[in-house]
Amino acid sequence: MQTRMRAEVLEIPDSVERLLHNGTIDIIAGGKALADLGPAFLVSVARGSSDHVATYLKYASELLLGIPMASVGPSVASIYHAPLHLNSAAVIVVSQSGQSPDIVEMARAGKTAGALSFALTNDPASPLAQTCTYTLNIHAGPERSVAATKTFVNSAVAGLLLLAEWKGDSALRNAIHALPEALSRAAEIDWPELRNAVAGHDSLYTLGRGPGFAISNEAALKFKETCQIHAESYSSAEVLHGPVSIVGKGFPTLALAAKDAAEAALVEVADQIATKGATVFVTSDKAKNACKLPCVRTGHPLTDPLALIVSFYAMVERVARARGINPDTPRHLKKVTETL
Amino acid sequence: MQTRMRAEVLEIPDSVERLLHNGTIDIIAGGKALADLGPAFLVSVARGSSDHVATYLKYASELLLGIPMASVGPSVASIYHAPLHLNSAAVIVVSQSGQSPDIVEMARAGKTAGALSFALTNDPASPLAQTCTYTLNIHAGPERSVAATKTFVNSAVAGLLLLAEWKGDSALRNAIHALPEALSRAAEIDWPELRNAVAGHDSLYTLGRGPGFAISNEAALKFKETCQIHAESYSSAEVLHGPVSIVGKGFPTLALAAKDAAEAALVEVADQIATKGATVFVTSDKAKNACKLPCVRTGHPLTDPLALIVSFYAMVERVARARGINPDTPRHLKKVTETL
Repeated sequence: MQTRMRAEVLEIPDSVERLLHNGTIDIIAGGKALADLGPAFLVSVARGSSDHVATYLKYASELLLGIPMASVGPSVASIYHAPLHLNSAAVIVVSQSGQSPDIVEMARAGKTAGALSFALTNDPASPLAQTCTYTLNIHAGPERSVAATKTFVNSAVAGLLLLAEWKGDSALRNAIHALPEALSRAAEIDWPELRNAVAGHDSLYTLGRGPGFAISNEAALKFKETCQIHAESYSSAEVLHGPVSIVGKGFPTLALAAKDAAEAALVEVADQIATKGATVFVTSDKAKNACKLPCVRTGHPLTDPLALIVSFYAMVERVARARGINPDTPRHLKKVTETL
Repeated sequence: MQTRMRAEVLEIPDSVERLLHNGTIDIIAGGKALADLGPAFLVSVARGSSDHVATYLKYASELLLGIPMASVGPSVASIYHAPLHLNSAAVIVVSQSGQSPDIVEMARAGKTAGALSFALTNDPASPLAQTCTYTLNIHAGPERSVAATKTFVNSAVAGLLLLAEWKGDSALRNAIHALPEALSRAAEIDWPELRNAVAGHDSLYTLGRGPGFAISNEAALKFKETCQIHAESYSSAEVLHGPVSIVGKGFPTLALAAKDAAEAALVEVADQIATKGATVFVTSDKAKNACKLPCVRTGHPLTDPLALIVSFYAMVERVARARGINPDTPRHLKKVTETL
C-alpha cells in the first residue's frame, strides 16, 4: 500500500510546477508592492512546518536583500493583546489552512498597525486570506496526509519567488523555475545508510546552518510526527554550546548541508561530532569523519535546501513504515491545529 | 561536596543586587539613548543560554514597548558576509564572555550599518564590549561552572531594566529592584516530585509561552548540558502542531507558567498532554490533570519567569548529581565556545 504521504512527496515537482504556472502573476505583483514600499524590516507569523518556511524566508531575505525578519509569536496579539509598531514593516503570514485563530488575529493586528501583509496559504478563501492585503495562493492542491510535505515546499517556493521578484534577481528566478526538474531527481534519492543507523534509536539531532537550518528544523519535526523519534534541530554553531553533551556512542546525527558559504563550517562541526562517537551523516562530499550522503544540487545556494528536504521526506516516510507507523495518521494529531 | 553550579545558583540574589547597585547608572543612560533614538525595531545577536536571554527580551520588548525584535544569526555576517540594513534598528548583543568571533563580527556589522548597539557582557574589556556603542556590564562576577546560571539571570535583568528605563515604567522598575528578595525565596524551592518523575527517562519536553517560553528554552538546555537528558523546549502553542506525537505513557513534561495573560492557555495544554498519558508538571495552581509545582510570584508578569528559572536551576543541579554527573564539567563542553 502506498501512503498518502509518499504520493504527496512524489507529487512535489508537479505541485511546484502548478504554483509557478498559476501563481507567478500574483507573486510578481506582491514583489512590486514590496519594492515600492521598501519596508525597513519583515515580520513573520506562522506555526509548525509553516514556521520553518518562515525561518527559510528569513535567511533568504537577510542574505538576498539585507532586510531582517522578526518571527513574532501570535500570542503577542491573541493572548497579550499588545499592539506592535509595524508601520515600517511588511508582514508575511504562512499557513496552509489559513484557519488558526491566533494566526488570523496576529495578521489582523498587523493590518491595524498599518503594515502591508501577505498570506501564503493553500486556501484563498480562508479567514487568513481575507485578513491580509495580498493573498499568495500556494496552489499545492488538497493535502490529505497529516504531515505537511508539498505545502511546505510550495510555501517556501512562493515566498522565495516573492523575494526574488522584490529584488529583481534573475539568477534566483531562473533557479526557481528549474526546481521541478531538480526536485524530481531529489525525490528519487534514498539514504539507506541513514535509515539503518536510525533504527533502534529514539533520539537524534539534525543540523543545518543559514537557510539549511530551516530545513533541519523541518526534518526534526517530521522525525517526531511520523516516526515518534525525538529528533531535535540545531544550528551547527549552536550545537557545541551545550546540546552536544547528550551525544553518546552511536547517537545519530544528520547534517543537511546546502552548497553554500556555510557548507565548510557545517561539515567541520559534523566531523567534530563524529569524533565524539556519534554516527553522523552529511549531504556534502567534503566530510572527513562523517558519512557522505548523495544529494541533488540545484545550481543556486538558496534553492539547494528545497532539494534536500524532498530527499529527506522520501526517506522519513520509509523510516516511519519500517517502524510500523502509518505516517498519514500520526499519534495525537489532527490536520488543522487551532490555537488561541 | 557542594558543586560550583549550586554555589553560583545560591549566589544569584547577591549577583542581581550587585548588578542593580553597580550597573544601574549605565543602564539608565542606555535607556535614554534608546528613547531618544526611537528605533523601528531591535535586533538580537547571541548563542546558547545568552540567546535565551535574547528571546526573553524579545517578548519583553514586544509586550512592553510594541517594538519587535529580530534574532539574527551571526552567520549572516561571519559566514555569508551579507550586509544588513540596520539604520533604523538598535542591536542588542548578549555574551557572557564577549569573545566568540562570530558574535563580535555580527556586532561589528551592526555598527558599520549605523545601528546603535549594546553589549550585555560579563567582561567590559572583551572584544565585544570594544565593538558596541554601549557596554552594559552585567556584574555577575566570575562564573566557574560551565553551565551558565547567574550570568543568565544577570543578563536578563540588565536587559529588562534597559527596556524599563527606555519606557520609563516605574512598576517594572520597582519589580526589578525587588528581585533579590524574591529570587532568594525561589532558590529555596525544591521540586522532588519532578526529580522523581525524571529519573529513568532520557527524553522530555519543557513548555512555556510568551516570556516564559524563553525560560523553557533555558531549562531544556540545562537538562541536556548537566543531566545528559534530551529535553526539548516548545511553546505550548507549538507542541500540538506535531511534537506531541512522541508523547507516550509517563513522558515527563514541565510547563513553566508565569502569572501572566498566558497562564490559562499554557495550563490548558499541560492538562491536555496529561490526558495523553504524559507525566506533566506545571508551576500554576490552576491545573486540573497536571501536577502543580510550588513557585515564587514576583508581583509583575515580566519578572516571574526569572524566579522560575532560579527554582529550576536549583532542581536540575540535584538531578545531575542523582545521575552521577558533575554539572560543573559537562561532557564534551568548554566554558567559552568560539564559533566562526
